[in-house]
Amino acid sequence: MRISALADAAGLPVATVKFYLREGLLHSGVATSATQANYDESHLRRLRLVRALIGSVGLSVQQARTVLDLVDHPGDDLYSTLGRAVGALPPAAAAPGDDSDPYPRARAALAALGQVYDPDFAGVGQLEGALAAAEAAGMPITPDRLARYGRAVADIADYDLERMPQEPHAAVEYTVLGTALYEPVILALRRLAHQDGAVRRLRGKR
Amino acid sequence: MRISALADAAGLPVATVKFYLREGLLHSGVATSATQANYDESHLRRLRLVRALIGSVGLSVQQARTVLDLVDHPGDDLYSTLGRAVGALPPAAAAPGDDSDPYPRARAALAALGQVYDPDFAGVGQLEGALAAAEAAGMPITPDRLARYGRAVADIADYDLERMPQEPHAAVEYTVLGTALYEPVILALRRLAHQDGAVRRLRGKR
Repeated sequence: MRISALADAAGLPVATVKFYLREGLLHSGVATSATQANYDESHLRRLRLVRALIGSVGLSVQQARTVLDLVDHPGDDLYSTLGRAVGALPPAAAAPGDDSDPYPRARAALAALGQVYDPDFAGVGQLEGALAAAEAAGMPITPDRLARYGRAVADIADYDLERMPQEPHAAVEYTVLGTALYEPVILALRRLAHQDGAVRRLRGKR
Repeated sequence: MRISALADAAGLPVATVKFYLREGLLHSGVATSATQANYDESHLRRLRLVRALIGSVGLSVQQARTVLDLVDHPGDDLYSTLGRAVGALPPAAAAPGDDSDPYPRARAALAALGQVYDPDFAGVGQLEGALAAAEAAGMPITPDRLARYGRAVADIADYDLERMPQEPHAAVEYTVLGTALYEPVILALRRLAHQDGAVRRLRGKR
């Protein structure tokens, strides 16, 4: 298909598709003349991914390039590639504290949950910042709350991991999009579950 | 205590405390002279709340004022007040679509979960936007995934609601901070549960 049909199919302006081509986020089409090229399903699929990363997730072009590089070249150590890909997503992690114990709250929380603690993984710094903010507001996460949240979240994560594709490129894409795109779903569902519970508790079941 | 001691205790610069006083986010102290006033525990408590809303949650002064107004004047209909307070938090909801069915994806999802559907509640528009983004990326939330996420999130929400204070001012404060400050904790825990599961699956248990 021509670039105009590709842009149409992806729901993007032609100028945006040309911009992604120039920035190297989208691979070139097959030239059919000096000024025209043909695009196929692989381009449409890639555009959907780029649009999700930049449009929905809100990555910069540079951040999207980092993620797409990992999708394209997952390498031999898939575990480390997945960690780097997820680490390229917002939010930024809290700055590490003391060198010998950079993330004490996250370390303690992960020990309580019996989970791996790897301070190089961006999620650790994110958890540290989130726990510190709750603490500063006078609403620290108690061990009891952590245990209950941890159990519920592990249930979600198990489901996610069971469905991760085997093929490495697809695994990185699934992990990045499944992390970033499903996070807002989970948060909206929590607010709606609060609302649903509040209706029943405060207004009587209806 | 003097304003300098108050600022110290709250971990804020004196200029910031003065700014919050001018903006009416913090109530005045008891004047002890033409240029000095005394502040107490109530001011420190309020400053922690303001700092959480503006510093951690990232509200604008105007948004913080909306939330604080609802904390101060919860009114007789606590359910509706809680809805408005949570609705003042980011993220912004998706714009409604067709008038007769503004949020079709969220409506269907809530029906599947057996939960209240109230299109005036901000969470509904947030869920619609999140579901639409996942769909556009070619990774729609399947009924099966929705059911599993919904169950896990309901478990978290039950825990949250069981601990909501009875007293209306405290209930609004708990709901706002518990919604906004615990969301990043939940997301970081999910990423870390993914990592933990990936270690076990991809590298073998260690």
